[in-house]
Amino acid sequence: MIKLKEEEIEGKIVYSGDLLEVHRDKVILPNGNKSYREWVNHPGAVCCIPILPNGDIVMVRQYRYSVSNEVLELPAGKIDKGESPEDCAYRELEEETGYKASNLQLLTKFYPAIGFANEEMWLFIAKDLNKTISKLDSDEFLEVLYFNLDDLVKMVWDNKITDSKTIIGILWAYKILG
Amino acid sequence: MIKLKEEEIEGKIVYSGDLLEVHRDKVILPNGNKSYREWVNHPGAVCCIPILPNGDIVMVRQYRYSVSNEVLELPAGKIDKGESPEDCAYRELEEETGYKASNLQLLTKFYPAIGFANEEMWLFIAKDLNKTISKLDSDEFLEVLYFNLDDLVKMVWDNKITDSKTIIGILWAYKILG
Repeated sequence: MIKLKEEEIEGKIVYSGDLLEVHRDKVILPNGNKSYREWVNHPGAVCCIPILPNGDIVMVRQYRYSVSNEVLELPAGKIDKGESPEDCAYRELEEETGYKASNLQLLTKFYPAIGFANEEMWLFIAKDLNKTISKLDSDEFLEVLYFNLDDLVKMVWDNKITDSKTIIGILWAYKILG
Repeated sequence: MIKLKEEEIEGKIVYSGDLLEVHRDKVILPNGNKSYREWVNHPGAVCCIPILPNGDIVMVRQYRYSVSNEVLELPAGKIDKGESPEDCAYRELEEETGYKASNLQLLTKFYPAIGFANEEMWLFIAKDLNKTISKLDSDEFLEVLYFNLDDLVKMVWDNKITDSKTIIGILWAYKILG
């Protein structure tokens, strides 16, 4: 294997906002030249596949400002400071959908946007759901919808699911349950 | 369906670097309250599934500074200004792997990181490959590797593929070719 590692020689935070912290680091490349790497520091996130006793999957539709469109997604959210991915998954699932899970299983972890962000996405399957009351953040608005897994898989191959974590979650659910 | 749309009332670019352009926009929420949305403006990107006559998939391993690790990925890259996704796919595939495709087919498009970026990823299958010479960018270093599709699918389910576009690309390839 060839040497590919890039070493940081000077790190700088160039923007720090409510959500995004952007870094621009000076690095040494494998050939000894210097360059810059810009990247978003992200706390990580979780995504849940919530399965009801009848096999239906609980989904959410929300407006995504970045792409100016409503998007159908699996429930998901950012990890709070000091929170474990599991606790985040329990919390976000209940906040967004009003379902409290008592059975959570980690399926996989992946990087959604490795080219410019260190975000790690933890994908859980959530079972034994009990209805409570959804408690959305003050700036969060979404609609809870229910889908059959076979229909969701068809929607993936028909290009009707456009969110990467949701595509991966549906195909994982089908691998495990289908 | 309930109203979910958020309207921009004031847009602002808070950071503009070599790679990242970060926006912080003031918006009106569906309930009439005001809030801010921070997001990364991205030119879009392509990802190729390059298939050799023997069925092997051409992959690349590269150091990803954002996650401080070498990562195995499908060949991919950002769309240049004025460039079509197809032209970008032909260009990036040859630059990174030294294979020129003469048959490119769009499989799907998706959003890798919808929570904070408008990046759209165009996934192509690339066939009829001819070996030329790879022409990497001056700050790009990678290793070209060859994998059997069944092995790659197994690596997805064994959590050995960590990049979202690569997971989606491998599962799409298996759906089409497997």
